[in-house]
Amino acid sequence: MTTSHVRVLLTMALDLPLENQMNAKSVPVSTAALPSSRKVYESGVLHPHIQVPMRAIQLHPSANEPDVVVYDSSGPYTDPRANIQIERGLTRIREPWILARHDVERQETQRSTTSELTGFPVKQQPLRAKSNAAVTQLAYARAGIITPEMEYVAIRENVGRAKLKANGGEGNSWGANLPEYVTPEFVRAEIAAGRAIIPANINHPESEPMIIGRNFLVKINANIGNSAVTSSMSEEVDKMVWAIRWGADTVMDLSTGKNIHNIREWILRNSPVPIGTVPLYQALEKVDGVAEALTWEIFRDTLIEQAEQGVDYFTIHAGVRLAYIPLTANRVTGIVSRGGSIMAKWCLAHHRESFLYEHFEEICEICRAYDVSFSLGDGLRPGSIADANDAAQFAELRTLGELTRIAWKHDCQVMIEGPGHVPMHKIKENMDEQLKHCAEAPFYTLGPLTTDIAPGYDHITSAIGAAMIGWFGTAMLCYVTPKEHLGLPNRDDVKTGVITYKIAAHAADLAKGHPGARDRDDAISRARFDFRWEDQFNLSLDPDTACAFHDETMPREAHKLAHFCSMCGPKFCSMRISHEVQAAARESGMSEMAVKFREQGEIYVRPELG
Amino acid sequence: MTTSHVRVLLTMALDLPLENQMNAKSVPVSTAALPSSRKVYESGVLHPHIQVPMRAIQLHPSANEPDVVVYDSSGPYTDPRANIQIERGLTRIREPWILARHDVERQETQRSTTSELTGFPVKQQPLRAKSNAAVTQLAYARAGIITPEMEYVAIRENVGRAKLKANGGEGNSWGANLPEYVTPEFVRAEIAAGRAIIPANINHPESEPMIIGRNFLVKINANIGNSAVTSSMSEEVDKMVWAIRWGADTVMDLSTGKNIHNIREWILRNSPVPIGTVPLYQALEKVDGVAEALTWEIFRDTLIEQAEQGVDYFTIHAGVRLAYIPLTANRVTGIVSRGGSIMAKWCLAHHRESFLYEHFEEICEICRAYDVSFSLGDGLRPGSIADANDAAQFAELRTLGELTRIAWKHDCQVMIEGPGHVPMHKIKENMDEQLKHCAEAPFYTLGPLTTDIAPGYDHITSAIGAAMIGWFGTAMLCYVTPKEHLGLPNRDDVKTGVITYKIAAHAADLAKGHPGARDRDDAISRARFDFRWEDQFNLSLDPDTACAFHDETMPREAHKLAHFCSMCGPKFCSMRISHEVQAAARESGMSEMAVKFREQGEIYVRPELG
Repeated sequence: MTTSHVRVLLTMALDLPLENQMNAKSVPVSTAALPSSRKVYESGVLHPHIQVPMRAIQLHPSANEPDVVVYDSSGPYTDPRANIQIERGLTRIREPWILARHDVERQETQRSTTSELTGFPVKQQPLRAKSNAAVTQLAYARAGIITPEMEYVAIRENVGRAKLKANGGEGNSWGANLPEYVTPEFVRAEIAAGRAIIPANINHPESEPMIIGRNFLVKINANIGNSAVTSSMSEEVDKMVWAIRWGADTVMDLSTGKNIHNIREWILRNSPVPIGTVPLYQALEKVDGVAEALTWEIFRDTLIEQAEQGVDYFTIHAGVRLAYIPLTANRVTGIVSRGGSIMAKWCLAHHRESFLYEHFEEICEICRAYDVSFSLGDGLRPGSIADANDAAQFAELRTLGELTRIAWKHDCQVMIEGPGHVPMHKIKENMDEQLKHCAEAPFYTLGPLTTDIAPGYDHITSAIGAAMIGWFGTAMLCYVTPKEHLGLPNRDDVKTGVITYKIAAHAADLAKGHPGARDRDDAISRARFDFRWEDQFNLSLDPDTACAFHDETMPREAHKLAHFCSMCGPKFCSMRISHEVQAAARESGMSEMAVKFREQGEIYVRPELG
Repeated sequence: MTTSHVRVLLTMALDLPLENQMNAKSVPVSTAALPSSRKVYESGVLHPHIQVPMRAIQLHPSANEPDVVVYDSSGPYTDPRANIQIERGLTRIREPWILARHDVERQETQRSTTSELTGFPVKQQPLRAKSNAAVTQLAYARAGIITPEMEYVAIRENVGRAKLKANGGEGNSWGANLPEYVTPEFVRAEIAAGRAIIPANINHPESEPMIIGRNFLVKINANIGNSAVTSSMSEEVDKMVWAIRWGADTVMDLSTGKNIHNIREWILRNSPVPIGTVPLYQALEKVDGVAEALTWEIFRDTLIEQAEQGVDYFTIHAGVRLAYIPLTANRVTGIVSRGGSIMAKWCLAHHRESFLYEHFEEICEICRAYDVSFSLGDGLRPGSIADANDAAQFAELRTLGELTRIAWKHDCQVMIEGPGHVPMHKIKENMDEQLKHCAEAPFYTLGPLTTDIAPGYDHITSAIGAAMIGWFGTAMLCYVTPKEHLGLPNRDDVKTGVITYKIAAHAADLAKGHPGARDRDDAISRARFDFRWEDQFNLSLDPDTACAFHDETMPREAHKLAHFCSMCGPKFCSMRISHEVQAAARESGMSEMAVKFREQGEIYVRPELG
């Protein structure tokens, strides 16, 4: 198998320590298509100029099957025809769509200049809504407008399946409404109802629109970002590209430290997926980490700075109200959200209500002027099994519902963040309460982790909870990496986290009965049964690993044609024997007998043997 | 941190290739206690001579907490006082218990001599029931006898918790009956009812009794075993010791190939956990892999051979009836059970009913004479999402219910094997149907895998399903390693599979509300909140990995005392800030306010500030 990726080394500067690689030209990122895959694009009908990317996986000719088309979050990096230049950024595909709406204008930047890191070389004057216009997808949807972004995601959600293919999945959707075929009008209506969002800041025109909502494919988010202790800009850009290569639908840049502004700029200009942030982290940097010193004005300016850069969604911990802090006093793990703990400290220090809560309508006005979506943070989420579903958590959730309605009043798009650490039997209550209090605004959960006892494996403790809550209706799952609780994820951890969460999201889509979700499972299962090893690798979420594991014990090319593997060896291969069984069954007409069996409710009808 | 294990190298022969290490003296296995842990033993009351092992994890003095006692499947290997000699085998602790019942006698062996591998050096004449006595735990339970094995597991299940500690877990047990405290009489009654089994062959006196049943802690099994393509005896013994070190409750030796008898002997003589097998594999070896050439007589002799060696449970695919084979004809992945496909081929080739089904009562007689438990195999389990819960699978399940009752008639202990590949929304039906048709005999499932698309990560696709079905009532979860579908698991894969399944089993115990299950979660969460890093590592399922991950970015010893980690750095550590919040809350009497808040249903009562 050819290797599935090439790290683009734009200069020879890599022998420098990473900290010194502030020069854009030395950023290595992974490009090239995945094995046996090619990028295909589908055009719009309402908006013929839009080109929606998908990945077509070609199977071996012996399969006699069409290409398997899968959702593709990886952006131009996996298109060999794309000219990737990190220091120039991606093509600004949405810019003409945005400008054609005639409701934005260029303005002077208010960007901070505190960063020590080399800035992004190409400068753009930021856009902002004209006068008091609402430039959000929600405002357009309410006005009955189907934007290019909406048609784009409609095409994207159908993943190449034909309009008339009625292969509706069986499943239990717990009340979700999954249409056979997603139309642009369906997308518009879901956004108008607040049940879905398209995070798409007008200053992030490089992004390929995607949708987050209970009635669409379950999405995943990958967190990246440096901390004061480790990591650099080039590592973070590399992690972003790496995360979307394996399937991250959005990326949150959770960087802290001095270079936060410029790291974010490099990420945004090169990101085809929406970027989320927690603006409080940068605001806290501006007051040297002294939570009590935060003010609304500093926070507001930070929001504007990030909105101008193009951040697509903000985590805002406005639900951490002064009144709820006493409810955390007897918790086993207190407040484990960084943003939540900062706000709690501020509230206590000043003994007054959170400025985020008090100024929430002003935050809405900013978000409305750039179409930054809200991700209402769960600052009081449980950090241990002991604290799950407690009074603090649910008090905050009700406030998030209240804030959702305020944001909607301002035409702002909203999703709601959820826990955390929750044992299995308490997971469904989280979804039920969220639907009830937040009026079906999309839910976006971190895991949840179903036990506390496995640091080093929290991608797994949380994948269990994530798959379940995704099935119950969560729209986006925030990944957890093996490093959770222990350190900052490196490149390998990012990949492990993303693949693990693609599993959880896909398991959820299957269980919800998402139309077409099973197609890939069926294709890989047929490949498995037919001993098409290469097809099995290529259809998997991680072809490199699948192939490497196989090759550990059976490395030769001829083994890719073998009708067995090292697990059982040739004599015990159930699949091989099963082929013989099916051949014999065909000879004796067993397939027809099976029909008879089911019709008659009888155990067996002995065939007439010749 | 000191390393948690030492591989015992009994000779210097390790520079030979592994295939040549047939000499017992060159078998390396991992010993030494886990970090900060010591082996403690609790004596019996009814049977004062029994010594039930547990692991006590000592916390840092600053915690001011007692040792955390956890279930310990690792046997004498983690007891520094034990004298481990692989070529001599473990102490035969159960031999006096068995002989004291005066219902067994020594007999001439009927063992096969086909193996090329060096045999185990210490020979024992096998035991067998006298005349027609039933020597099964089920027979004793029905007779009202509480055996040492039963008291042993009662003590073991309580994991050191005191009789009067009423810390009953909250949860949803889906109808399971989880007592606050497990008494020997409760164990007896559960076994008598067929709801639980103690796999304990009279010829495997080295085993430390354990119980499998819905009303006990969820157990996990690890599969090991070589195939015709790879692996050797020394590797398999090493894998067994490695698997139980990390928590495997039973081990199945699925070896195939020429050396199957002697590999099993080495494993049995050194295994403190029950060993299961699929006798059909060895029977097939005896007829050179030609399924059609199998006969009842060859199979019967194989059963006796393995019963004499001490195999604790047999997977018997007697539910694969001729009549059901046509039901698999249109499946996407046919028959994926090795045993199932062998029997299907035999049935079709002879066009007659399975000899396992027809001779089932004779199999019962053998099992009864050695106390080999049945693990009724699901030869028709689904091998893909497409085939889940289909007619073939459920037809077989009903037959397994029929066979359960026959086995019980013969005083044999029974558990039922289950799938396989099942999407989340179809998992509960598996448990419900099993309970309904198999009269609450313990369920023992392989995963299930919740999607087919992630070869290389099937420990994760299946951990999701395993946690859920464990919650619903499955008594034992058979692990799946990352190599599933791709190759034979190596040592690392075994560990990954075991830890992953410990997570699933523990998540299930928590959700069922197993009394005391949450104690370890709470202890590690307190350690996390208090920045007791070493305690956090030591309380985790895999201290080595947790510590190594932490040390990747913060390697110095001083960092073990740091009140932050590299994930967020010092300024953003929510836990640290949360401590400050709690301190402030204490000052202003917030804890009392929280009580008032809840009592009055009011949001906040402003305290009198001084």
